[in-house]
Amino acid sequence: MGEVVEMHAAAEPAARRAVHRVTLSNPPANVLSVAAIDGLLEVLDAAKNDPDCRVVVLAAAGNVFSLGADYEEAGRRRADEDGGEAFFEASERLLAGLAQAIVRHPKPVIAEVAGAASGAGCQLVAACDLAIAAETATFRVPDVNLGLPGAGPMVALSRGLGRKHAMEMLLTGETIDARTAREFGLVNRVVPPEYLTTVVDKYASSIAAKPAEAIRLAKEAFHAQAEMGLAAAYDYAAALSAESMKSEEAREGIRAALSRRGSREAGE
Amino acid sequence: MGEVVEMHAAAEPAARRAVHRVTLSNPPANVLSVAAIDGLLEVLDAAKNDPDCRVVVLAAAGNVFSLGADYEEAGRRRADEDGGEAFFEASERLLAGLAQAIVRHPKPVIAEVAGAASGAGCQLVAACDLAIAAETATFRVPDVNLGLPGAGPMVALSRGLGRKHAMEMLLTGETIDARTAREFGLVNRVVPPEYLTTVVDKYASSIAAKPAEAIRLAKEAFHAQAEMGLAAAYDYAAALSAESMKSEEAREGIRAALSRRGSREAGE
Amino acid sequence: MGEVVEMHAAAEPAARRAVHRVTLSNPPANVLSVAAIDGLLEVLDAAKNDPDCRVVVLAAAGNVFSLGADYEEAGRRRADEDGGEAFFEASERLLAGLAQAIVRHPKPVIAEVAGAASGAGCQLVAACDLAIAAETATFRVPDVNLGLPGAGPMVALSRGLGRKHAMEMLLTGETIDARTAREFGLVNRVVPPEYLTTVVDKYASSIAAKPAEAIRLAKEAFHAQAEMGLAAAYDYAAALSAESMKSEEAREGIRAALSRRGSREAGE
Repeated sequence: MGEVVEMHAAAEPAARRAVHRVTLSNPPANVLSVAAIDGLLEVLDAAKNDPDCRVVVLAAAGNVFSLGADYEEAGRRRADEDGGEAFFEASERLLAGLAQAIVRHPKPVIAEVAGAASGAGCQLVAACDLAIAAETATFRVPDVNLGLPGAGPMVALSRGLGRKHAMEMLLTGETIDARTAREFGLVNRVVPPEYLTTVVDKYASSIAAKPAEAIRLAKEAFHAQAEMGLAAAYDYAAALSAESMKSEEAREGIRAALSRRGSREAGE
Repeated sequence: MGEVVEMHAAAEPAARRAVHRVTLSNPPANVLSVAAIDGLLEVLDAAKNDPDCRVVVLAAAGNVFSLGADYEEAGRRRADEDGGEAFFEASERLLAGLAQAIVRHPKPVIAEVAGAASGAGCQLVAACDLAIAAETATFRVPDVNLGLPGAGPMVALSRGLGRKHAMEMLLTGETIDARTAREFGLVNRVVPPEYLTTVVDKYASSIAAKPAEAIRLAKEAFHAQAEMGLAAAYDYAAALSAESMKSEEAREGIRAALSRRGSREAGE
Repeated sequence: MGEVVEMHAAAEPAARRAVHRVTLSNPPANVLSVAAIDGLLEVLDAAKNDPDCRVVVLAAAGNVFSLGADYEEAGRRRADEDGGEAFFEASERLLAGLAQAIVRHPKPVIAEVAGAASGAGCQLVAACDLAIAAETATFRVPDVNLGLPGAGPMVALSRGLGRKHAMEMLLTGETIDARTAREFGLVNRVVPPEYLTTVVDKYASSIAAKPAEAIRLAKEAFHAQAEMGLAAAYDYAAALSAESMKSEEAREGIRAALSRRGSREAGE
């Protein structure tokens, strides 16, 4: 695990195993240096392979979520023999790999956003399956101000937000507040800062308590069918649903649900 | 027509012919048993071939829209020689076929949602062209709670809602109220329960009164061009528009519109 | 430049060169006659090739943005030997070309909407990168009322709005007000009519002051990657970002940003 990423153990042993809390900690701005990205990729990989892990929470230390790419590091590498070209190529590929590692991760990844999420930091939030933000959180993609197109952030933003909203963020680089981010569909919920961790834990532990294979398939199928035409998507969905009905998980889940319904109807 | 689906005649003879009101009636939960799906497919097919039918309203009897798949039926079929496999395959294909029968239907299909729309019931609402909900309506996809990925519902949800909203419904299985469903873009309008049928009839009869071929083409073209790249979509649109300009319907519609404008400008 | 399109010079010489203000002026309804479309295409082309132009504002003279296609012109052409077929084909291709000229334009195009944007007029607003509307603006696609499918408008509407919202506009032809258009994601911001031009100019001059090549690439990449699968989009984004890091624009932009940050941290 990279030294700029911490794994906090949750308070309860059971929850600790089920909810992996990954905290980006690279003060003061939690910039995504190569070491930080490597660290995040490492813990995401560990969470992928840990059978006890059900849900990943992606949080950040301090009052800033992440101000994005580490441009100081990039600036230093301009002194490389090739003017930094190999470094830029490698670090941009790492960032794109990180966003995809979140999307392709077999467990849901929830962003916990307490403060500013900027540039590649905003990209991470957009790439997560769910995002809960404090009222103090802000979001922006200021890349154009730096002479950059914001190509990475736009991939998730253009797929998750309305086009005019995504384009406004990308062309103006302006900061939007948490309430606006919710209106745009960038975050699912906005809460007072003092309740942020509690609400995120509630979401995470609720999802962690659900049938694991169903959650894994739901996330995988969501992204798979989203890239298909409608007829292919429904074919895929029907085959997956029929296959899932055969699982022991579904057999038990359906039996329990019918039994609860029966009890209610019997007035128990 | 299956016995769990009713066709209610509208009050006025003209509206009866133009607006087909299809009511799912499988108390108490209006679950989508194979018989119910067959019944819906049958009346949708009849509406397709009825030249007098202009608009279909998909409603449900009682206070529940539909709680989704019939898991009791599925449970009974686990006793089949193959453990229910052939049945699961067939019934999931039927459900996917029903959603596509709505999308591919040549007449607009409007969901009238008075109560809970859950799982495959929520999928039906998402697949409809328009949806009007009572304030009492609720929406959820609880499939993960049953050990299932919700693959069918996600096809329409991921295409109609923001990604984070769709993912939240699929991963948490939580119930959202009608107002939230409107915010998410799952329903077009929310009205007091006592006005639900009136508002739906207003939408339906308004659309039914419009040029039929234009409505048919609008719906068909919407889904066709949505799966194309931008340049191909504009090529397709230009060709379709030019072709439509030649129709007698367009000739009359445009003449009438210009005449109304002329009258207004002449102070009539 | 066609006589139905005016180029207004902005007040300040610098802004005049950077922000091209294109005003559709074909009273009383600013309909998109062939001459008007030709005029718009001509000034968009001039703006494309003018190295001083950074941003295009697409506005309209008077209290109407545009009521769409010129159906009187189309009606007259029904008297052509071929019943108008060649004309319809050519004018629909022109309209589709205009929408694409906006999307493919290398500079951002901002719609300034003071009044009614109807049919192909609404299509133009939807095709623009950003749209600012006065509270008095209205939006509708009444094509079905005229016996037409609204094929052109649906291309941009179905890509920019939620599906149910887009379908409602297309099937009902109903007018929505500016506030609803903002909710639907059709416009970015709604302002009192007396501030419309001021707010649009603020957006335009802010974007015009940003690094030009980054803005050009941001817009181009947005549309390019939107048509790719996710993995291809991230590959494309990483390659573009790495390439952009090498530019003099990025070198200066990043150096300036780091220097500002350093000054702040040093308490200056």
